[in-house]
This record gives sequence, structure tokens and C-alpha cells, in this order.
Amino acid sequence: MPTLDSNVVLIAGGVGGARMAEGLAHALPDGALTVIANVGDDDDFYGLRVCPDIDTLVYTLSNRIDRKQGWGVADDTVRALDVLGTLAAPTWMKLGDADFGLHIWRSWQLAAGNSLTRVTQEAAKRLGARARILPASDDPVRTKLRTTDGWMDFQPWFVGRRCEPQVLELRYDGVEQAKAGAEALAAIEAAELIVFAPSNPLLSIEPILAIDGFRSAIAASRGLRVGVSPLIGGKAIKGPLTRLMAGLDLRTSSCGIAIRYNGLLDGFVIDMQDLPESDELQGRGLSVLPTDILMRDPQDAERLAAEILAWTAALREHRERAAS
Amino acid sequence: MPTLDSNVVLIAGGVGGARMAEGLAHALPDGALTVIANVGDDDDFYGLRVCPDIDTLVYTLSNRIDRKQGWGVADDTVRALDVLGTLAAPTWMKLGDADFGLHIWRSWQLAAGNSLTRVTQEAAKRLGARARILPASDDPVRTKLRTTDGWMDFQPWFVGRRCEPQVLELRYDGVEQAKAGAEALAAIEAAELIVFAPSNPLLSIEPILAIDGFRSAIAASRGLRVGVSPLIGGKAIKGPLTRLMAGLDLRTSSCGIAIRYNGLLDGFVIDMQDLPESDELQGRGLSVLPTDILMRDPQDAERLAAEILAWTAALREHRERAAS
Repeated sequence: MPTLDSNVVLIAGGVGGARMAEGLAHALPDGALTVIANVGDDDDFYGLRVCPDIDTLVYTLSNRIDRKQGWGVADDTVRALDVLGTLAAPTWMKLGDADFGLHIWRSWQLAAGNSLTRVTQEAAKRLGARARILPASDDPVRTKLRTTDGWMDFQPWFVGRRCEPQVLELRYDGVEQAKAGAEALAAIEAAELIVFAPSNPLLSIEPILAIDGFRSAIAASRGLRVGVSPLIGGKAIKGPLTRLMAGLDLRTSSCGIAIRYNGLLDGFVIDMQDLPESDELQGRGLSVLPTDILMRDPQDAERLAAEILAWTAALREHRERAAS
Repeated sequence: MPTLDSNVVLIAGGVGGARMAEGLAHALPDGALTVIANVGDDDDFYGLRVCPDIDTLVYTLSNRIDRKQGWGVADDTVRALDVLGTLAAPTWMKLGDADFGLHIWRSWQLAAGNSLTRVTQEAAKRLGARARILPASDDPVRTKLRTTDGWMDFQPWFVGRRCEPQVLELRYDGVEQAKAGAEALAAIEAAELIVFAPSNPLLSIEPILAIDGFRSAIAASRGLRVGVSPLIGGKAIKGPLTRLMAGLDLRTSSCGIAIRYNGLLDGFVIDMQDLPESDELQGRGLSVLPTDILMRDPQDAERLAAEILAWTAALREHRERAAS
């Protein structure tokens, strides 16, 4: 069965997005995959720009990632951070030495007037990432959370406080002013297949969709558009998703996630454990692929990616037959 | 014999200055030593401020120094630099990971509006340096060299080209606008003893003296003022001094060095090998201490420092007796 093998776009956050990206990169020919990365988690540390989702994508796709923790560079050391700690700087953000190399370089390149899109592509290429990685925007979009402790920036909440303060409200600062990255938007327009990664919808996917241009471009796409659930049996594979959604009175189910992407998807990939949700999803006009969606390792990710590519190829064939 | 044991100021560049500083710090009570550091070697790398002379002083005085090479942190790694190299940034300046921690912190603090004086003192204190370290100025002074390859910045010539292009002319960019550090100037005014370290006069000491205020403050000092020769038998202990001086048609001898500090010194410390120069130095009104000035290790430095302190105490006693 022929698969959709060029112009595949993945819309992604950090760890889950990076695993899906790795699977797709292995399953697709070189050059076929473009990843559009969330920038809502970005923050400045010691004057250096850190882009956690982009970094996790770059490190995963270049096989530099620390696979045990899912982020950072494998076997990295923390000498610079230790010195910063001795100098009484806050060090809750665990930036490794090799990791600092990228942050230093990026901050230097940005200060010289290069766009985040250009800097990210250059870093991905030089570090050997097996896909094109594009930030959703060159402009700052920053996820802020109103918690039981008041408004917080994302990283102080996520890393500094380990998601402990309950979230009552979210906003994406700067999103009204931010322009969608031109190359990211062009990638969506040219896409044969758009995949929403199994990332946190509130913290990873929606800060992208909220930027003017993305939602309408995806809605208007002639390509196939599918999402992968970040939940298995109603539980998040990783991260604070279920607690966050429950705190905001949102449905913590694959269906609940798919509904958030209402009007943007042709299909949804759920875990076998969530098979009972199939009917509701299909009732909402979505094709459903129930399979094992847990990506324990790159092999799992590649298998899942290959299944998604075969399924979406079949969906397209079916669509084309119906149209003719 | 009583020594001069408070308000001792050392005017210093990098490696030789740091060794002398370490010797004096060991020989003096805590809090007695202030080092005024050259900033003419400072430069920006990847947008981070690097102050090689200050850093060498801080690392030496906190016993973090790589003693084999004389600069940098002992056993440091170069993970960040390796990543920068992979990202096609120039990496001839060998910045280690722990070293980057200091540069990141300093650049962050400076960007927040703190003065180099304040940032340097804080770093020295937090890292455990056994003396107060003050930059000669909070303003940029940058040594530039006209070479057979044209005008060059200092670090590209010194490190990048290993002092290879012959120097035809020097200038200290910004020196006319630079204000002497207020605390550095106050330290000189309060000094009982001012020591010119065995540093390169052209590259380390004179970029300090050229800043308005230092020369006159030293000339007006009621303290004793002595220099330590950076030459032994007409040869530099380390670095490009003799080649640099010869290229500029300057006398490459301890006497030649002392003459450059004309009017600022009461005495000069030379190596036993240069004993024949004693007469000329004394003829110029300088007291002379001939001894073993080579500092191979901290013990050598402490022994030399103790000798200098005893000798200068005797000089003061003699001066006081002559005055009464």
C-alpha cells in the first residue's frame, strides 16, 4: 500500500512530539518531514534564550537526547550550572554544559538579528537532526498560568515547581501580536499530511493554533489531518496533562482532546485501551485508528509512524475514490 | 622585622600577576590585598563578556586555576565549546564549561546594569578568591595591535594567532573615555605598598596606567611603590614580551622595564641573573632587590612575596628615619 511520503507536517510540543517526530523521520524518506514546534515554553535564563520544545526535538532527531529523562543531552555534565549556583544564581532549570553550547549560540545568533526560524533550522542541520524543525513563530509567545499561587511563567511552574500549583487559567502572552512563521505556514499549505503530535493540547498544540494563520491554514488544507492522542486509558503518558485538564474542568479522555481540535482533523489515533471512545469519535466525523500508541523507544515510534502513514494513505485513497 | 601588612595593592595582568597575587595573598593577612586588574584583554565571545586577566586572578586566588596552562579552570571540559564548533562558531578561544558558567553569569549581571567592579567583586567573593579584585575601569578599554597583518584585536592576535604577527604599534581603544574605577583609585590612595606585578608592561600594566587618574595617584602615593621584573636574563618568563618589545625597538631588559615606569617606583625587584643591571637602576634612584624571581609554584610565589614585604618594610623604615 503506498504511503503519504512527502510534505508531512508534525505539529509538536516537547517529549511526546519529539518521539512522534523520530518515528516519522525514520519511517519517511529524508526531507519529507517538517516539524512545527511550540515556542510557548521558551524562556530566558541568565540572558540566554532557551527553547525547551525545539531543543527536545533537535536533540531527539539528532540522537543526542537523554532518553532516560526525555530532554537534555545524553551524558551531559553541569559544570557551568554548578558555577552559576556558586555565584548564587537560581539553578532549578537543569541546563547541561553541551546544552548551554546551543543556548549560547542561539542567543548570540538572535542578538545578531537572525530569526528564530533561521537559527533553529541552522542548529538542526548542523547538529544532524533528521527533519526540518520550524518554530511556530519568530515572535515571542509565552504560556502563562494562573495558579492557586497567582500568575506564573511556564518554566517556573513546570520545572521550578514541578507543576504543583493547581492551574485555574491559561493564557498565551504575545499571541495576538505574533506572526505565524512564514516557512511554517508554507509547510502547512504544502502538506499532504498534517499530524498533531501526542503532545499536551493546552501547553503545546494550542499555543501554536492560537497564532493567527495556523487554524485557518489547517482547516483549508487539502492534505489529510490526523491527531494522535496523548492519553491512554484517560491517563497522560507523561506530564501534567490530566491534572491540568481536570483542574480546568475539561474532559480527560481521547475524545475530550479530539474535540479541542474540532474542525481541524480528519482522523484520530487512539490507544486500544480507549476503543470504547471510537463510536463517539466516528460520530463526530473522525476516522479512527485504534492501536498501541505508547512509544517506549524509537522502535515503537517508528512502528506507530508506519501505521499512521499506511492508515492515512488508505484514508486518502478512500477519499479520492469517493470524490471521483 | 615588621612587614607592610595592610592596604597592599597589586597592579596586575594575567598569569604573572596572578602568581604574584597568590604569593602576596598567602604572605599577608586576610583582607590586606587588593589587586587592580587589566581590562585591556577583555573581549566578547558569542555575546558573552570574557575578562581573561580578571578570570586568571579569580581562578588562581580561589585555587581553581589550571596550574599547568596558567589559565582556565583545572580539569575543565569543553562540551559547550564542542557544540559551538559543531554549530560552525569559531572556537580558537578555549573556553571551558565551568569557565562558561562565570562568563554567562557576568554577562547576565552586566546586562542587568551592574558595574564590572561590582560583578567582579561578587564573583571573587563567591568563588572564594583570597583577595579583593578590582577591574581598572568599568568602561571598556581594548588593546589593539597594528601588526604586519594590519590592526588586530588583542585576543585574536594573542590566542587566535599565538602572537605570531609582528606588532608594529599598540593602542588602548577607549582609554581616553574610560574612567578609573573609583574603588581601584581609592585603593591606590589608601595603599601602604603598591606592587607592579611581573606582568607585560605594554599589554597588562600600561593599559591600566593609561587610564586617567592612575598615574597621578601612584605618583602622589605616600606608600612605597615597587615593581617586579617580568624578565630573567633579558628573557620573558612567559608570553610574547621580549619579541613584542624588540619589535617596537624597546630595551628588553629589567632596566628597560623599570624605565617605562619612570617616576612611579621607589624600588625594583630583579632576578639574581640580572644583578649587573643593579647599578643602572640605582643610578636612576631605585632601590633594588635582587633575588630569585621565578615563580614555579605557589611556594615560590609566597617566598618571593615575603621577601618583597620584608624588603619594602625595611625601605620604609629607612625612609622614615631619613625623614625624621
